[in-house]
Amino acid sequence: MEGWALKGKRTGRAVTWPKGFRAAGVTAGIKPSGKADLALLAADEPCAAAAVFTKNKIPGAPVVLGKKRVRSGRLQAVVVNSGISNVCTGQQGLDDAQAMCDAVAEHVANVEARDVLPGSTGVIGVPLPMDKVLPGIAKAAAELAMGPAADAQFAEAILTTDLAPKTATVSFKLGEQSVRIAAAAKGSGMIAPNMATMLAYLTTDIAIAPDLLKQALRSAVDLSFNRISVDSDTSTSDTVAILASGKAGNATIDRYGPDYEIFETALTKLCRDLAYQVIRDGEGVERVVRVLVHGAKSVKDANRVGRSIVNSPLVKTALHGADPNWGRLAMAVGKSGAKVKREKLSIRIGDVTVGRNGAPLTLNAAQRDALTQAMQQEWVTYTVNLHVGDANTDWLGCDLSEQYIRINADYTT
Amino acid sequence: MEGWALKGKRTGRAVTWPKGFRAAGVTAGIKPSGKADLALLAADEPCAAAAVFTKNKIPGAPVVLGKKRVRSGRLQAVVVNSGISNVCTGQQGLDDAQAMCDAVAEHVANVEARDVLPGSTGVIGVPLPMDKVLPGIAKAAAELAMGPAADAQFAEAILTTDLAPKTATVSFKLGEQSVRIAAAAKGSGMIAPNMATMLAYLTTDIAIAPDLLKQALRSAVDLSFNRISVDSDTSTSDTVAILASGKAGNATIDRYGPDYEIFETALTKLCRDLAYQVIRDGEGVERVVRVLVHGAKSVKDANRVGRSIVNSPLVKTALHGADPNWGRLAMAVGKSGAKVKREKLSIRIGDVTVGRNGAPLTLNAAQRDALTQAMQQEWVTYTVNLHVGDANTDWLGCDLSEQYIRINADYTT
Repeated sequence: MEGWALKGKRTGRAVTWPKGFRAAGVTAGIKPSGKADLALLAADEPCAAAAVFTKNKIPGAPVVLGKKRVRSGRLQAVVVNSGISNVCTGQQGLDDAQAMCDAVAEHVANVEARDVLPGSTGVIGVPLPMDKVLPGIAKAAAELAMGPAADAQFAEAILTTDLAPKTATVSFKLGEQSVRIAAAAKGSGMIAPNMATMLAYLTTDIAIAPDLLKQALRSAVDLSFNRISVDSDTSTSDTVAILASGKAGNATIDRYGPDYEIFETALTKLCRDLAYQVIRDGEGVERVVRVLVHGAKSVKDANRVGRSIVNSPLVKTALHGADPNWGRLAMAVGKSGAKVKREKLSIRIGDVTVGRNGAPLTLNAAQRDALTQAMQQEWVTYTVNLHVGDANTDWLGCDLSEQYIRINADYTT
Repeated sequence: MEGWALKGKRTGRAVTWPKGFRAAGVTAGIKPSGKADLALLAADEPCAAAAVFTKNKIPGAPVVLGKKRVRSGRLQAVVVNSGISNVCTGQQGLDDAQAMCDAVAEHVANVEARDVLPGSTGVIGVPLPMDKVLPGIAKAAAELAMGPAADAQFAEAILTTDLAPKTATVSFKLGEQSVRIAAAAKGSGMIAPNMATMLAYLTTDIAIAPDLLKQALRSAVDLSFNRISVDSDTSTSDTVAILASGKAGNATIDRYGPDYEIFETALTKLCRDLAYQVIRDGEGVERVVRVLVHGAKSVKDANRVGRSIVNSPLVKTALHGADPNWGRLAMAVGKSGAKVKREKLSIRIGDVTVGRNGAPLTLNAAQRDALTQAMQQEWVTYTVNLHVGDANTDWLGCDLSEQYIRINADYTT
């Protein structure tokens, strides 16, 4: 998917690819399936760190605690369980999240509890089974390692209903030094703007000041995870965190400038690739759509339109049925809240302009064929031009399938 | 469904039940199915009238024209086709909507085109087949009649994917005089706050000033159609219109007072019953949910929470699976934008309190049974108390089923 997926073959490498990190993923027995459900990432030394969390006002306990942790701009470890989310669990949940951090400090040498970011994902409203979580942390700590196997285990252990692990890597040069960024993410349900049930843990060996790391992460998230939607729901647990070990040997980035720009650009590419993978593997997804919005009055308006289109159930079901029902796109534009003029709207599906100046175009046979072809691809592009300004954006969305219903109608039962 | 559905048996009577109206519904050949697709309502004389339209900024041509028409506070006829919506059809669409009104004036004695409200519902982005619409209007005009058959034909001809016609009646006394209100509505897909593809045509024989009729309609719509959602999409064609013939013989209501209050209350009851019917017959709906929101900081906040819950795909799929997944309710509360405090939220399903002070309660066997029972009903009630203020609201929603996907994945193809 142009502008989103990274080109080239995926290596499968993830969080221990940059220098200075070890990881593990083990089965603690939290998931009834017996799959890996406890992930641990540890850096050799405290790292510059930043994180972005869900905007949901009823966040999970790990988010409440994590926000405090990351304020220092420093982290050394990440511990995540999957299967149970530790959301809506009251004081017990906060205590449990703290206990997870304490267990990491106990079992991993030189790591303090205040430098551990906790995470949980899965069913909401159920207490964590700490009798399984704590032994799981001890086990993971004993297995911490570098290399492809450790990367794969970590990436696997943070998943819930995901069909496949999501990993990505990018590298670039700063002067003579090679810098690496890598990540493992989970997505699937509740994926929406403002970071639905999305966890992404990024590592890099760049040397950078924490405030600039934070700035780069925010910018990258804004152009990636905040522009995708599987189902419009905003999870209570979303977290994107990055740890920078500083082992790459570059001169520490402590101000805006070319080095910062190179880093931010690479980080954005990585995040957009992860976001694409999250959408592609959304619950029941068969078709991905890129929505290009042009000619809006403001970027805010452009994003309103993009969000409205990718969130519309009627747009999503039409996409599922490969139906070039562009009237539903117009409906979604009209309900977005953005400034629009009915008589200026034009809409393109793939390379075929289907509506111009708010009215349908008569298509010839070749155009109708092209339209049918465009809708049957695994990747579909909708282009909407509002012609009321010069602000643009692009969003990723997906179809809504019977499979989504089946997955979500009995997730806890 | 308490507080929404009218008690007692439905009579099936609709728009010609109040004095002074005739109606018809015929097959004009717009729908490929051969079902009735052209509805006509005509009053004996010009009526006081009011209407509320979609807030979608890309409204259909009939809405653009209708808004102008109703500004006079006077209407005498309504003409509606189903099958094609006349949305995104440019100048041609406006001309066609006007031509529908002209045809009514031509074929119905004593009706002027400027007193005709046009309506269209169905597929977006396709021009109206006027060679079928215009003869259909002539045919309907010739068949205008009073009584149960005319009511049923009108109610049938405005439907699209609805499974059943939606009609309702209420009556009350003003002094010695008996006043009637009746309606026919269509719903199904695109039902969301701000009046999704919802058409409702109401008639009454009350004598009332147009500005008070408008006020009463707005208030009734706000407490009914604006508090339901099938799929969160806002249609381009929504219209709720009322015509008041003044034939009941009551002293004309021209100021606020007891008579106005009685009328507004009855009108609200009627609209809530229609709204309930629309939800019950939503595309693929198997289960209806009433969401009671208590303890919000403001009514606006209460409505944000209600809307967020009924629109959440994860809440809707859990409802479909009869899954008492109250964590998803908490998620929807948290993403609503309303002022909430995690540690104050309590949630009840049916009569069972499942979460209090933001934490889950341990349920005994009897409570778990009651919870399972509550979720398996055709009508489910969720009660959310934010405990941050004293504003309340109630909303109606429904489950999201595989059937919804099937209906909407190939509506035009």
